[in-house]
Amino acid sequence: MANNAKMKIVVLVSGRGTNLQAIIDAQQTKTIASRIIMVISNKENVAALDRAEKANIPFQVITSKGKSKDVYNKELLKSLQTLNPDLIVLAGYMKILPSSVINCFPNKIINIHPSLLPSFPGLKAQQQALDFGVKITGCTVHFVDEGCDTGPIILQEYEKVHNNDSQKSLSLRLLKKEHAALVQAIQLIENNKVILQDRKTLLREEP
Amino acid sequence: MANNAKMKIVVLVSGRGTNLQAIIDAQQTKTIASRIIMVISNKENVAALDRAEKANIPFQVITSKGKSKDVYNKELLKSLQTLNPDLIVLAGYMKILPSSVINCFPNKIINIHPSLLPSFPGLKAQQQALDFGVKITGCTVHFVDEGCDTGPIILQEYEKVHNNDSQKSLSLRLLKKEHAALVQAIQLIENNKVILQDRKTLLREEP
Repeated sequence: MANNAKMKIVVLVSGRGTNLQAIIDAQQTKTIASRIIMVISNKENVAALDRAEKANIPFQVITSKGKSKDVYNKELLKSLQTLNPDLIVLAGYMKILPSSVINCFPNKIINIHPSLLPSFPGLKAQQQALDFGVKITGCTVHFVDEGCDTGPIILQEYEKVHNNDSQKSLSLRLLKKEHAALVQAIQLIENNKVILQDRKTLLREEP
Repeated sequence: MANNAKMKIVVLVSGRGTNLQAIIDAQQTKTIASRIIMVISNKENVAALDRAEKANIPFQVITSKGKSKDVYNKELLKSLQTLNPDLIVLAGYMKILPSSVINCFPNKIINIHPSLLPSFPGLKAQQQALDFGVKITGCTVHFVDEGCDTGPIILQEYEKVHNNDSQKSLSLRLLKKEHAALVQAIQLIENNKVILQDRKTLLREEP
């Protein structure tokens, strides 16, 4: 694998952008060598775009609202092909990427999910975990494949669930773990430490 | 809830009985106040029975081999009703308990499972975890309901998966966590620290 240091990263967002902020912070403190070349949101006026602007990172809105899925996906793919990133990070991006995008960037798209996959894929993972009554949950950084949160896992971090946890309190603690895991995953990838074998990853230096 | 201290425990086994040994050790060191009144195996000549004998704990074999499921289940239920335990522990017991037994001992049956449920229920959970490529797995102590490893969770412990883990190496590390979790769950139950609310448990003192 070629040396990926200083990868060009595109971050896809849909909302608050706290995971985007974690990457921005890591870039500014040189915790990672890679740089975000573009933030793309499928929604206008979200806080994630303010974070990009404040950090002088280019951003664009490719709105999914009022468009057919097909039209939206083609616009997104065209933009991504023009940008030609080394890594695409889904950071709270609430749309399912179509296979056209996934196949165009094989093993170059990662997602952060607020559960220990394969438990609780999909939406509201924290509430799913509370409803099931697990005592340990966590977060997962994984490569994106065509399934819903099913791709090869790069990193996982655990978090204990407390008696009195609400969706909010648990989500807040998980967010901290998500931020750390996402930055660590980017570090591992830019340093060529992630080896993909079938559907599993081996890490050259285990965290 | 009545004070359960010094519960009468029946342990169901099918094989090596290392989880049984953990309970025997906890009983002998007075880590738990409860006592095992009977070990029941569905197989003859398994190491678990030697462990019971060595510890002077009564044991019986109710063989499932060569019998209809119905006949076996009736024999098991009759034996359990005669013993009238406060707690039934499935410790590597490889049969599915029928609803007749589960309904007769509501919230009095616990199981130890070598994964962080709801991930990887059923057989060979460690291999399932390795095949999926998770970075964190663990073990779960839960009340037994009519599903397969679906009952309310009492305790979970996590364990990291390493690059070079085999089914054997991971299982060995998990076993240590299982032993600790199982003993801790019995402690919590005998001290009335486990409160069941719908399908969830609250622990009066969180570990």
